[in-house]
Amino acid sequence: MYVINKDSILEIVKQLDLIPLIKEGFIAYSEGRSVVPPIGELSFKNPPGDVHIKYGYIIGDSYYVIKIASGFWENENLGIPNGQGMMLLFDQKTGQPKAILLDNASLTDIRTAVAGQICAQQFSNDIKCIGVLGTGLQARLQVEYLTHVTDCRNLIVWGRNREKMKQYQKDMGHKGFKVNLADSVRQLSKSSNLIITATGSSEPMLFPEDIMPGTHITAMGSDTLMKRELGPGVLKVSSLVIADSITQCQERGEISHGLKEGDLSKDSVVELGDILSGTRAGRTSQKDITVADLTGVAVQDIQIAIAVFKSYLENQK
Amino acid sequence: MYVINKDSILEIVKQLDLIPLIKEGFIAYSEGRSVVPPIGELSFKNPPGDVHIKYGYIIGDSYYVIKIASGFWENENLGIPNGQGMMLLFDQKTGQPKAILLDNASLTDIRTAVAGQICAQQFSNDIKCIGVLGTGLQARLQVEYLTHVTDCRNLIVWGRNREKMKQYQKDMGHKGFKVNLADSVRQLSKSSNLIITATGSSEPMLFPEDIMPGTHITAMGSDTLMKRELGPGVLKVSSLVIADSITQCQERGEISHGLKEGDLSKDSVVELGDILSGTRAGRTSQKDITVADLTGVAVQDIQIAIAVFKSYLENQK
Repeated sequence: MYVINKDSILEIVKQLDLIPLIKEGFIAYSEGRSVVPPIGELSFKNPPGDVHIKYGYIIGDSYYVIKIASGFWENENLGIPNGQGMMLLFDQKTGQPKAILLDNASLTDIRTAVAGQICAQQFSNDIKCIGVLGTGLQARLQVEYLTHVTDCRNLIVWGRNREKMKQYQKDMGHKGFKVNLADSVRQLSKSSNLIITATGSSEPMLFPEDIMPGTHITAMGSDTLMKRELGPGVLKVSSLVIADSITQCQERGEISHGLKEGDLSKDSVVELGDILSGTRAGRTSQKDITVADLTGVAVQDIQIAIAVFKSYLENQK
Repeated sequence: MYVINKDSILEIVKQLDLIPLIKEGFIAYSEGRSVVPPIGELSFKNPPGDVHIKYGYIIGDSYYVIKIASGFWENENLGIPNGQGMMLLFDQKTGQPKAILLDNASLTDIRTAVAGQICAQQFSNDIKCIGVLGTGLQARLQVEYLTHVTDCRNLIVWGRNREKMKQYQKDMGHKGFKVNLADSVRQLSKSSNLIITATGSSEPMLFPEDIMPGTHITAMGSDTLMKRELGPGVLKVSSLVIADSITQCQERGEISHGLKEGDLSKDSVVELGDILSGTRAGRTSQKDITVADLTGVAVQDIQIAIAVFKSYLENQK
């Protein structure tokens, strides 16, 4: 069994062409060629923390994958990253453990950014300005990954903390982005036609009246029962609502709130893999508002973990 | 993070006093001092296999534990053990991974045998003859662990395969047991006052009319929805039915079948930890038939994994 550390993983992952890999994962999922049980969860109170266990396999593939990812919000006080985790690969035919990827949650960050990349490529109009809610890791990574699919380098950012907004402006400026600081979420949404929501908020922030026609929203902050970024009515004014997993989005994330509030019906939600495979239509009009709700599906973890491990084995030769 | 291999684990586990550790785990579980979510499951068809993910923690302890255990029944054709697995320990306050115990399912085998040991000690009358259904690993390990709690070395064994029964007789003979081969389960149950059911059967084998008064049965073979060893009515004639986890036994194992068939009500099931803590009574009459249904609870894994790791750290000093 191989134990692969984070530095090696990050070195390998740079060489991988991730978009087709993750797309293939979503397609396999929507076509029923994967087995992905419900997420396992473990919560801690003192100090507060959450562990998610995502696991599954693509039928006929070499490995099955288990990902353990945790968030302990007080870690930063100790100088330890809040996110912790690893991915484990096992032989699909014998159950034998094959590899432990001590990625410390970095592969999750990357596969999440790649899903955002895929959605921006698939659903946005010609991007004029990218609005980013949040100033954390995903608020950065999502934008960095977008450079592969758009020439747009105009950002407008909003966060609860002005200091963090300035730091974001500075850091992303060094990476070639022109970053404006928004005074309000409203100002941000009025000036962007691609909006990425990447906060940990449990209060809605983005409201239907502020969203411009033709906007695509990738909502990736909300991935639990309680979290929420889109206000009531946003999904109602959207012509296309995409879920990475319809089953999962019924239980958690923006769509779960929209279903409860009658903003949309389950039947109107389209699964990302079905659009990527051409089974279902994507954006059909430039004026439409579209929303992709990303809660994170194990097929993304499966695809990235297996690709890293196969590449690692290749390099060993 | 430490990666501890099977040889080291087996060396350490020999030195541990496991009965009090596992008892404490059951008590913590029954007293609500543990967090043990439902078992995660992953099934494979070609070749057939099952993966169980058991996880949780005892509140206030140092670590949380995730166990991954699989059974791939065709592995033996490849000369690989059917059971595969590992236990993972993480810091309960930060989520940081601390240790990987590559025990290859051996700690599960041991903690299961210890649970049997505890039940025999707690519920059986003076043991005259031990009846063993099955000839596999648990059919052996359960009996070996009983040597610490009884002087009885008389066994009667039944299995579907006569050759395997003879092999069992020979192997256990070398370990100091006098082993009779049963012609039928009925003959076995007529001559034993402690019965251990340790097969992978999905058909009932043991029937109420064949069980002698005063018998204790530890049913540990049936741990999934489909598996079953006790026939209809066995739980009805039992004065005491013990579950390692009432919640879990409602879903899987012998008690789940008994509940469906009306042989007992949920309220009449007593949880092992409640008897071990003295909150509930155990056997009250020598004539009673008692049944302990062991489906395996994560607290057992938590307790044994943490004890092994702590001992490993001690030895490093």
